[in-house]
Amino acid sequence: MAAARRAGPVVVTGGAGAIGSVLVRELLARGREVRIVDNLSGGRRAHLPPIDPPRLTLIEADLKDPAQYASAFDHAAELWHLAANTDIQKGSRNPRLDLEDGVLASFHVLEAARTHGVRRAVYASSSVVYGYPSVFPTPESYGPLEPQSLYAAAKLAGEALFSAYAHTYGFRVLLFRFANIIGPNMTHGVLFDLFAKLLKDPRRLEVLGDGRQAKSYLRTEDCVAGMLLAAERVDAPVGIFNLGTDDRTSVREIAEKVVAAHGGTARIEYTGGERGWVGDVPQQLLAIDRIRALGWRPRWTSSEAIDRTIAEMVADRRAPS
Amino acid sequence: MAAARRAGPVVVTGGAGAIGSVLVRELLARGREVRIVDNLSGGRRAHLPPIDPPRLTLIEADLKDPAQYASAFDHAAELWHLAANTDIQKGSRNPRLDLEDGVLASFHVLEAARTHGVRRAVYASSSVVYGYPSVFPTPESYGPLEPQSLYAAAKLAGEALFSAYAHTYGFRVLLFRFANIIGPNMTHGVLFDLFAKLLKDPRRLEVLGDGRQAKSYLRTEDCVAGMLLAAERVDAPVGIFNLGTDDRTSVREIAEKVVAAHGGTARIEYTGGERGWVGDVPQQLLAIDRIRALGWRPRWTSSEAIDRTIAEMVADRRAPS
Repeated sequence: MAAARRAGPVVVTGGAGAIGSVLVRELLARGREVRIVDNLSGGRRAHLPPIDPPRLTLIEADLKDPAQYASAFDHAAELWHLAANTDIQKGSRNPRLDLEDGVLASFHVLEAARTHGVRRAVYASSSVVYGYPSVFPTPESYGPLEPQSLYAAAKLAGEALFSAYAHTYGFRVLLFRFANIIGPNMTHGVLFDLFAKLLKDPRRLEVLGDGRQAKSYLRTEDCVAGMLLAAERVDAPVGIFNLGTDDRTSVREIAEKVVAAHGGTARIEYTGGERGWVGDVPQQLLAIDRIRALGWRPRWTSSEAIDRTIAEMVADRRAPS
Repeated sequence: MAAARRAGPVVVTGGAGAIGSVLVRELLARGREVRIVDNLSGGRRAHLPPIDPPRLTLIEADLKDPAQYASAFDHAAELWHLAANTDIQKGSRNPRLDLEDGVLASFHVLEAARTHGVRRAVYASSSVVYGYPSVFPTPESYGPLEPQSLYAAAKLAGEALFSAYAHTYGFRVLLFRFANIIGPNMTHGVLFDLFAKLLKDPRRLEVLGDGRQAKSYLRTEDCVAGMLLAAERVDAPVGIFNLGTDDRTSVREIAEKVVAAHGGTARIEYTGGERGWVGDVPQQLLAIDRIRALGWRPRWTSSEAIDRTIAEMVADRRAPS
């Protein structure tokens, strides 16, 4: 992106979340003005550096009500749309959730960008758009896409909207399909869930599924570095990039590592079944040739990312809070 | 589908439209009870056989307000969701249109089906979900999907929702990606537009684009026959099928045929440019091996479909009305 545009403010939805807060720090380090729009449902002020207008602002807002946050788009240069429901199972129990916090939120932030003349946009999509693919590692060109959950449907609908805004209104958009992203400050995901269970009952650890689900886990820092690199290098109406690692880690391996980090005494009990829950995708490994061709590579393998994140979680628990 | 289920009522959204009304007749001919839900924005009562409850009922309703039509799903066996905005350019001028009449309508009819225990659903999607593909004929497995218009984004979002309902709630869904469907009772599309222009000014015919856009045109009867065949033969959570012809027809050829049918005197004027309008996809030809493998084939080529439809339009104009 041109220097003049790079100087303009960046709107980051979900900027107080686990991925968003890492992105925000990186943007600030690059001298960008950052305007966070977040409803603080998953995000936390504590994840952020001190609010310091105009360098860093936070608007606490519901993305479905553009009047609450339209001002963030005044003279903005870019939109980074990371906000979403993050609880796939909750979306299955309440189908409106992903419609509203996914599809409608994406529509309204795109409209806010369009009506304010913002034409650069980045969207945090997910490997879940592939459904349960028949090809591993799965390339960006894989099809047909069969979302397995309402969450996945909302992610694909969001991609569709960003693409339409590119081709209809002259946006330049980047769509990133994330592997499982892990790192500090997570409020969901397998590591978070397993730790929470062990804190509740250190003698046994219930694991959903048969433990053979295997996915690629990518550290937040690697994820953010990949997005920032593509944002610098790519200038096309629509750029689509997988972001993941070359390896995958089974749920069994993760559960055993979590138990070991917790003293190694808990008994692991698998609920059984190929899928952890309805709408889950049991196997996930993304082809990352495209993003690699831009010069990116993950600093940590999936296995290393798991180890690092477990170590952080154990240290956090031991730290006085 | 099993005999018991086949005996149950069918809900057809958009059943008063050009495709829907042909489908309704075929369902009635097979002895099915048909419940049409249509807002009559594009559909017309005149397209339908006489309303004859319970054999054939029509609820005039806005799909975004499920209370208006929930009763149609009582003890229903299947949902056929054909209703949508049909004007792509209007959707570009008013981005809410395809969100509401596309995405939200699909969500609400799926919810109505789910809450009433209906688990069979058919969705009228479109070749526009492919965006402007690099492979012709384009197979169902083509990716990545880059919708070029808000209309196309809404169609893809609809596919995503139907797929999610299949994998999350046990639906069996069929998604049909239509080529350009033509036949009687159309209220939009290239033939309709060109005829309307000639009726207004028989001396000149303005054609959007350079005339070299070329697409596959499929007759409504063939389209409906393909859907019905797949509904009989396919029993998978998600079935995705292209429906088109093996040939394509250029806009120039269509314009010349329309002018010839109108006395051959109008001067054709091309506005120029590869695309007819923003969001248009200039080339379209679908791989139809999948639906062909079920035993379907189009009765008319694209060129024959154009000829037949023009002849009908001319006859309609000459008929006393």
